[in-house]
Amino acid sequence: MAQAQKITPRAKDFSEWYNDVIMQAELADYSPVRGCMVIRPHGYRVWELMQAALDAMFKATGHKNAYFPLFIPQSFLAKEAEHVEGFAKEVALVTHTRLRATGKEGAAAIEVDPESRLDEPLVVRPTSETIIYAMFAKWIQSYRDLPLLINQWCNIVRWELRTRLFLRTTEFLWQEGHTAHASEAEAEAEARQMLGVYRKFQEDWMAMPVITGRKTESEKFAGALRTYALEALMQDNKALQAGTSHNLGQNFARAFNLQYQTAAGGLEYAWNTSWGVSTRMIGGLVMTHSDDNGLVCPPQLAPVQVAIVPIWKSDEEKSQVLKVGEDVKGALARAGIRVELDARDSLKPGAKYFEWEAKGVPLRLEIGPRDVAAGQVMTARRTGGKAPAPLDGLAPTVGGALAEIQASLFKAAQDRREAHSIRGVTKPQFIEFMKQAGGFAYGGFCDSAACEAEIKQATAATVRVLPDPEFRSPETPKTCMWCDKPSVAEAVWAQAY
Amino acid sequence: MAQAQKITPRAKDFSEWYNDVIMQAELADYSPVRGCMVIRPHGYRVWELMQAALDAMFKATGHKNAYFPLFIPQSFLAKEAEHVEGFAKEVALVTHTRLRATGKEGAAAIEVDPESRLDEPLVVRPTSETIIYAMFAKWIQSYRDLPLLINQWCNIVRWELRTRLFLRTTEFLWQEGHTAHASEAEAEAEARQMLGVYRKFQEDWMAMPVITGRKTESEKFAGALRTYALEALMQDNKALQAGTSHNLGQNFARAFNLQYQTAAGGLEYAWNTSWGVSTRMIGGLVMTHSDDNGLVCPPQLAPVQVAIVPIWKSDEEKSQVLKVGEDVKGALARAGIRVELDARDSLKPGAKYFEWEAKGVPLRLEIGPRDVAAGQVMTARRTGGKAPAPLDGLAPTVGGALAEIQASLFKAAQDRREAHSIRGVTKPQFIEFMKQAGGFAYGGFCDSAACEAEIKQATAATVRVLPDPEFRSPETPKTCMWCDKPSVAEAVWAQAY
Repeated sequence: MAQAQKITPRAKDFSEWYNDVIMQAELADYSPVRGCMVIRPHGYRVWELMQAALDAMFKATGHKNAYFPLFIPQSFLAKEAEHVEGFAKEVALVTHTRLRATGKEGAAAIEVDPESRLDEPLVVRPTSETIIYAMFAKWIQSYRDLPLLINQWCNIVRWELRTRLFLRTTEFLWQEGHTAHASEAEAEAEARQMLGVYRKFQEDWMAMPVITGRKTESEKFAGALRTYALEALMQDNKALQAGTSHNLGQNFARAFNLQYQTAAGGLEYAWNTSWGVSTRMIGGLVMTHSDDNGLVCPPQLAPVQVAIVPIWKSDEEKSQVLKVGEDVKGALARAGIRVELDARDSLKPGAKYFEWEAKGVPLRLEIGPRDVAAGQVMTARRTGGKAPAPLDGLAPTVGGALAEIQASLFKAAQDRREAHSIRGVTKPQFIEFMKQAGGFAYGGFCDSAACEAEIKQATAATVRVLPDPEFRSPETPKTCMWCDKPSVAEAVWAQAY
Repeated sequence: MAQAQKITPRAKDFSEWYNDVIMQAELADYSPVRGCMVIRPHGYRVWELMQAALDAMFKATGHKNAYFPLFIPQSFLAKEAEHVEGFAKEVALVTHTRLRATGKEGAAAIEVDPESRLDEPLVVRPTSETIIYAMFAKWIQSYRDLPLLINQWCNIVRWELRTRLFLRTTEFLWQEGHTAHASEAEAEAEARQMLGVYRKFQEDWMAMPVITGRKTESEKFAGALRTYALEALMQDNKALQAGTSHNLGQNFARAFNLQYQTAAGGLEYAWNTSWGVSTRMIGGLVMTHSDDNGLVCPPQLAPVQVAIVPIWKSDEEKSQVLKVGEDVKGALARAGIRVELDARDSLKPGAKYFEWEAKGVPLRLEIGPRDVAAGQVMTARRTGGKAPAPLDGLAPTVGGALAEIQASLFKAAQDRREAHSIRGVTKPQFIEFMKQAGGFAYGGFCDSAACEAEIKQATAATVRVLPDPEFRSPETPKTCMWCDKPSVAEAVWAQAY
């Protein structure tokens, strides 16, 4: 369907390259609706595979899915002061409920019926804390009803002015976990647990290494007590926030009167957490692994893990290689491998290679008449490397190759990240680092909003996280790399999406 | 969480009974947003099981999932005349994109910022034909791109004035299939095929017998050439439209210039179909099977298929029955059965029975000390009947019982439907039938909108479908049961939701 177009090289224009990869792989497309994109079948299948893996992990940790209204009464948003402040400037507002005929022609034939104005405008959910905790307040009476562990898969709307496919769109898909607990310690443990779930998913499925840690006050979620985040380094050395997990404290419980009777008989406000990841992760996957030939998709999330391309010249050869292709397809499918046999007459093998490469298929199997005679296929990895493999016992060979590709993608991304990280940074080094290639800069931080603002102004870098212990540098910095006052915590800075 | 409340008997007030069943089973709850409901975990799990079954059937018939924008520019809706006519009076319209502070307190602290008004209002999708076929027009160039077989799982908004949980809410969840074909015959075959998929799902999973057939001109989808539907009879003898499949002809292709190059080199408009089922089916499931004790859920769609209730008096008995309960749970779970062990200390067995009954669990296993001694459990079917079953080989016994329950629910619903169907009806019989208990009335029909309107006025009954051959009466009616003119087709009338 897509016309074969050149992909802009990364070195020339990273942003163009990113769009080209997505369009060539048919992951998504621009829509006629400002800021909204269409997720095409190949991209949506990646999302389905992401959903399946995450959903199983959510259920294994005791969460249940539910569904809450798309619309939030305007007054609900106003109940938590920081929350409304954070979202007021980017909400889609439903104000009317009927169209009427104008008697004119074409697009002007209808208009909003002014008589259908709502008494209270409705906000299309930019996140669902307010509506969900209003319901929790109805359902939770006693400590016996706690913890309440809910997750929702849904669409979200934030009126963004500058949009990028997957990374920042007016509408996007996500999941939002919302929980209520009897104590601050339990809420904190939940927020940390889900950060761990996300890390496991992003490392083991997406093959995308992440740094976890806490956000500073100025970067935390509007209404949260503490925000934890996962940060990944893209190939242009900019950071991508890949997920967040919030300890909301009792802020929303107070706003929505979410109280419960304790075992001792008293009344207390519940402690909430919320946590989410979105289709933005698909953008992260693209920018972590892909190359100038198009998408590179880690096998765990590849819609097609193996593409079989039969090669023939005569009709006799065709029936021979297709027969073997069908057998191989069957054997791989039975082993649980997502496989396609590309039997199209209309394309030559080279064009097929090109297409499957652009689509990010991790492993290609070529089957020509000579391969059939030799009882083998030729394997070609998307990440480089060709080798024959015997037909006998092919499924485990292929399974092994996919596991190797998955592991090598993670290692390559981790090596690249470490090569673009600098530790124990000084102010001059920091300025130089951010001016040149960029990446993750670790250094001492006084934890003041003033320093953060100054640094952002001077270098466009922000604190991505105050990293968790396993990511901290061996030597604890003693002073803020920017102002030289005592350091409160090591910080990781980067320019970010 | 829920307080134990009485369920209004069906005979007293069917509508109250329906709401009570849903609230007691915790399938859904009312929300603070007018006309919108919350789907609670137990109800959402039913929806997930429905989705899983349907999605597998869609994929097996070659469809791929994708995702299109929530918002549709107002002008798009205007492009297909019947379509806009059908939806203009029930759309949520986004007109502004910012809130601003007013300086007042509380709920009045914010208001819509008039300066954020959109040039063109956006319609929250009431269905997605317009936006999807606009994208199809971009993707389809040649006959080689056909057929294009897409499905979307999403939320939908129609501004309904009178709402009912699951049956008619301002927002609901559904899937909408959208396809493009090279010929009318292919589109027709697709529309019919998906009607068949829905029938299989509703009969085999929901245990809900349906009549399939064509809608009359006045009941067809706004913009369709032909609409096919599935109709089920609820326990109050009202019909529920449980799904529709539309042959859209070239109506939308013309409106969105969806043309393709034929093999011969000419240009032709594509032929489209669309088809959908929604969370409304959960309402149908409730009204087909449930009783005065609460929800009855067919095993295929039951979030919990088996509830194990251990019975003990002493601590020694407790550890004994819980041990057996854990073993049974493990054995059933390994056999792929959705099972819960209710080990709560806070409730007596009778209260647990009551709760699992209200939640529609098909099979309960009671395990007391005497059962343990006898190497058995007591099985109790939600639909009636208790019998002991040996622990040895319990999983296949339980699997067999679930299959029997599934089959018996379907048969009971089918028998009830047939008992409330009348064939070869005359006008006086028809009037009497609709005045009394109601149900499906089969009779000759002249196919005129005038007769339909008159019948609706007089009896509140509408033509549900012109039934497919397998549902038609053995004797073809010769005259319209209402006006006595020649009958064009047999019709099935009922009062409907």
